[in-house]
Amino acid sequence: MDRLPVFSDVEDAARRIAGEAVRTPLLENDALNERLGGRVLIKPECLQRTGSFKFRGAYNRLSRIAPEAREKGVVAFSSGNHAQGVALAARLLGIPATIVMPSDAPKIKSDGVRRLGGEVVEFDRETEDREAVSAEIVDRTGATLVPSYDDPYIIAGQGTAGLEAAQDLQAMGIFPDQFVCCAGGGGLIAGCGLAMKHFFADCDLLAAEPEGFDDHRRSLMAGERVANARKTGSLQDAIITQIPGKLTFQLNQTQLSGGVTASDADTLEAIAFIWKHLKLVAEPGGATAFASLLNGQVDTRGHTTVVLITGGNVDPDVFKQALDRA
Amino acid sequence: MDRLPVFSDVEDAARRIAGEAVRTPLLENDALNERLGGRVLIKPECLQRTGSFKFRGAYNRLSRIAPEAREKGVVAFSSGNHAQGVALAARLLGIPATIVMPSDAPKIKSDGVRRLGGEVVEFDRETEDREAVSAEIVDRTGATLVPSYDDPYIIAGQGTAGLEAAQDLQAMGIFPDQFVCCAGGGGLIAGCGLAMKHFFADCDLLAAEPEGFDDHRRSLMAGERVANARKTGSLQDAIITQIPGKLTFQLNQTQLSGGVTASDADTLEAIAFIWKHLKLVAEPGGATAFASLLNGQVDTRGHTTVVLITGGNVDPDVFKQALDRA
Repeated sequence: MDRLPVFSDVEDAARRIAGEAVRTPLLENDALNERLGGRVLIKPECLQRTGSFKFRGAYNRLSRIAPEAREKGVVAFSSGNHAQGVALAARLLGIPATIVMPSDAPKIKSDGVRRLGGEVVEFDRETEDREAVSAEIVDRTGATLVPSYDDPYIIAGQGTAGLEAAQDLQAMGIFPDQFVCCAGGGGLIAGCGLAMKHFFADCDLLAAEPEGFDDHRRSLMAGERVANARKTGSLQDAIITQIPGKLTFQLNQTQLSGGVTASDADTLEAIAFIWKHLKLVAEPGGATAFASLLNGQVDTRGHTTVVLITGGNVDPDVFKQALDRA
Repeated sequence: MDRLPVFSDVEDAARRIAGEAVRTPLLENDALNERLGGRVLIKPECLQRTGSFKFRGAYNRLSRIAPEAREKGVVAFSSGNHAQGVALAARLLGIPATIVMPSDAPKIKSDGVRRLGGEVVEFDRETEDREAVSAEIVDRTGATLVPSYDDPYIIAGQGTAGLEAAQDLQAMGIFPDQFVCCAGGGGLIAGCGLAMKHFFADCDLLAAEPEGFDDHRRSLMAGERVANARKTGSLQDAIITQIPGKLTFQLNQTQLSGGVTASDADTLEAIAFIWKHLKLVAEPGGATAFASLLNGQVDTRGHTTVVLITGGNVDPDVFKQALDRA
């Protein structure tokens, strides 16, 4: 696909992943509504296969690779969730997968890739360029590079999470005021935005990012893509991409109303709340949007808010830190 | 209702709780299927309101109380999950609730009852009789006693979890070989049995219990209700009822194929697995059935098994013990 994805591409992706991806439910929680003074609908993508929404885009993308190109394999670079999504999609479609991962990625994520049959190649986040490492593998093997966000099929695939949420909201007769989800490269919120705006044109879309890594929020205000100062140093490892994607930002610039942030401490609080009241396991970057509700940056009082918990791949030690706040 | 519940009572309960209870999904997990060498469908009742299936039966039962009796309130005795179910159902129906709880109940459960507006009366599990404590309150106030399992409406209400599972299985074209769920008083498995046997007459039903508290397993073998030797001393606090219920055992004796057990250590392993791979929070007694799959007591190889995770109300310290095994 050589253009920006549109709503029908999300519908097409939904047909492609049907029967392979989990259709995650839309949950509501008494304690959360009470605390926030509004109605909150939660889409728990931690319940998705491989523990994050990333399987949706990966399966959609890989399913489009021509039969003759499949045996040469796929390459992806990722801090872990995209990696696992690609590894599982590749296994299901019979494609060899090589995953370029930062050496500081949570062990649960690199183990997950290996368990799914993917080959892991590590790189140093501070000194090496993951794109260069991946490009070298592509040159050598002829494998297909699977971007983690800046690709029309990836965006459309991630958008199926938003499509499911919109369909469920419509079936329940609920009109959401705002939709909050995290933004790393911005593929998820771009794709979900296509679906949400199709069903609910007046619903505000808000990008949630780690404090100090709010490239989307600042890019939206600047009207152009601006980068984060730092590349590392957040617990929210899944979403510390340095600059919004080119394709994703074209969509997000027209669809999003703004951005909110959460500190690492906020996400630990959120993980504890989600553990205690929702009985779900979230990872720091998967809880960023939820944390931006709890920390008050999103105005939930009297509003109907949809929030995504995007992943649950967290190491035990980090989770224990969160439990200490429960 | 002055008779044993039948399948149509479960259907009737489903209509009663519709829009109030969560229709929990039926999940499947790659890592679990791989480890067990069979297909496992998981019904996560930890995602139910109040964090356990108990809300189903409580709401069904309380919704049957005549308008003139409601203002006198309800009384329930419970280690915690039934307590929270009754407290929420009572709040939704505008009925005052008094809950008699053991003094060693997990704090998350007694706090939960208070948060829902229920009044907590504590008793000592070793020296006091919870039925006597409750009866005294009923005598004094005229409140309606809400049994935790030995009641046709409670059994039918809990059975809605099995009805949903059966409907989902039918929609997916899956024929289950066995259905495993925990048994404390036996109300859940009795009600679920009505639904499962209606849809899948050949499906085996297995009761899962804590090691050393396997009153259902032994009662089924003896052909009569036999009690556990001990009243306390298990981490699986939600399901250490001393003897099967009278009504529930009449159903379970005809519907169940047998029983399996799990040690406390087994349930901690199960909690860790559920945390790591399913991204769900289970409590020890809520993970007993799941643990009986992992410990090999249920023969899953080549079979299609349905398993319930029945609750997720666990204190942080116990959860950390489980995480140490992840």
